[in-house]
Amino acid sequence: MGKRIVIALGGNALGKNLPEQMAAVKHTARAIADLIEEGHQVVIAHGNGPQVGMINTAMTTLYREDPTHPMAPMSVCTAMSQGYIGYDLQNSLREELLDRGLSKPVATILTQVEVDPEDPAFQNPSKPIGTFMTEAEAEEMRRRGNAVMEDAGRGWRRCVASPLPKAIVEIDTVRALLDAGQVVIACGGGGIPVYRTGSHHLKGAGAVIDKDFASELLAEELDADTLIILTAVEKVAVNFGKPNQQWLDRLTPAEAGQYAAEGQFAPGSMLPKVQAAAKFAASKPGRTALITLLEKAKAGIAGETGTSISL
Amino acid sequence: MGKRIVIALGGNALGKNLPEQMAAVKHTARAIADLIEEGHQVVIAHGNGPQVGMINTAMTTLYREDPTHPMAPMSVCTAMSQGYIGYDLQNSLREELLDRGLSKPVATILTQVEVDPEDPAFQNPSKPIGTFMTEAEAEEMRRRGNAVMEDAGRGWRRCVASPLPKAIVEIDTVRALLDAGQVVIACGGGGIPVYRTGSHHLKGAGAVIDKDFASELLAEELDADTLIILTAVEKVAVNFGKPNQQWLDRLTPAEAGQYAAEGQFAPGSMLPKVQAAAKFAASKPGRTALITLLEKAKAGIAGETGTSISL
Repeated sequence: MGKRIVIALGGNALGKNLPEQMAAVKHTARAIADLIEEGHQVVIAHGNGPQVGMINTAMTTLYREDPTHPMAPMSVCTAMSQGYIGYDLQNSLREELLDRGLSKPVATILTQVEVDPEDPAFQNPSKPIGTFMTEAEAEEMRRRGNAVMEDAGRGWRRCVASPLPKAIVEIDTVRALLDAGQVVIACGGGGIPVYRTGSHHLKGAGAVIDKDFASELLAEELDADTLIILTAVEKVAVNFGKPNQQWLDRLTPAEAGQYAAEGQFAPGSMLPKVQAAAKFAASKPGRTALITLLEKAKAGIAGETGTSISL
Repeated sequence: MGKRIVIALGGNALGKNLPEQMAAVKHTARAIADLIEEGHQVVIAHGNGPQVGMINTAMTTLYREDPTHPMAPMSVCTAMSQGYIGYDLQNSLREELLDRGLSKPVATILTQVEVDPEDPAFQNPSKPIGTFMTEAEAEEMRRRGNAVMEDAGRGWRRCVASPLPKAIVEIDTVRALLDAGQVVIACGGGGIPVYRTGSHHLKGAGAVIDKDFASELLAEELDADTLIILTAVEKVAVNFGKPNQQWLDRLTPAEAGQYAAEGQFAPGSMLPKVQAAAKFAASKPGRTALITLLEKAKAGIAGETGTSISL
């Protein structure tokens, strides 16, 4: 009996521009197809940092050349990025499945995710988007009124608010397709950020929702068995990069919280992954979160590697 | 007992830029909600001429400023436009339905549509995209290697190939959601144009598929009862704009074909609508195609106005 699995794909599973994405998604599709071939139900969420950055830059450049085009808000740029990424991702996954003789529909659902307009994140932009910059370029960007930050030792990037996801607007659609045996791509880029006005009206928010937290919420709402957060390392480590570095095989949510409180995980990088994984594991007995490399997803599900978090 | 209806929205149902779109979709949502409220199953397809033109221009502008960003092909721009338009359209329709106490999921499905790489349309770009230009601007655009055309007396526009749709890749997803009682937005911009290589691999095509023909194929594949093509006039006319102009209430596919052969309908404007409507009506007894104004959709379904085509 297969598991219901939500997979959160990181940026390295997608590449940073069009040709990189075309190549990366083929590799990504193989790892995901391995899980589908084993009989698991799979829903895929993904990040969009470089992609929404590129689209935002393109729309801003257009506006500067021709101000009759209004500036595109982050919500609209995220909607575009879901189309851009979903297209390549669904296509490569469909192809990989057909290559293996599996005829299973793969669909991308344009997904809005509700946030709280009072979320304190709006006062403290922390989510890196777009391409890496030098410190001097970042300073220039800051002078133009944007927030910038140093991103986990990899360079400087522009950043926007990253409020927590509260509800997935299109959850009934994702569930209906999953129940119909289809493979679903949803919550791309953490979802199009919207907030509620009045009883049910939604407005776009100037934010990017962390894809790990959006994936966590998606996994909870779908009553998934497993949340897999794919990243650039095979396991989570404490004392990362130090002589006493230690890879972690199994954690309880409480242990994960303890390490996080000690500052063991880099904000904007491993920290949200561990926090999202621990939140899912703590949400119900029997739920497991797994953090590992894309290539190790199959071995991780088999309990052979990765960092596994459960009650 | 409600009908299964595919609605093809024209550009005037969406507006030409971000603020226009936000306003236009509210109006559009009311007309569509009228049909859903009457118990009909509704699938919505839409054009993307101005939108994909804007996105294409933005991506090209970005490439010119920073050539590390590769040029985005039309297929990728169409994928982005499905996200851009679907977001506003699904949101306004969801809101309008909730305003009326109807809690019905509305979902946008990223849709690829297969074309024939040998379609003669690739030799003769005919589909207008982007904003209107003066003749001098069009000449400059032509000098830069793009095809341009005069668009139905409204000005000059850039144009790309418009091959006929052969198959809708995500049709099983649209059908599953429709069967689950959801409202679906699909085939945005005529669908992301792809062609088959090998047995099942798909590659993006440098084209824009006419949304009326894509809607027609969608209606056939979903075994819809009615295809509604919404446009800027209440009825189709012969001798349009002349003293002997005559509005048409009912047509057979054969009569429509006869008028088309006489050159009664403007290419790139009313002609593809009449051709698509006639094709749907001819595809099976009992199928009806309706061409009318957005505001008249409800009255048209009731048989009170519009031009109705059936066997």
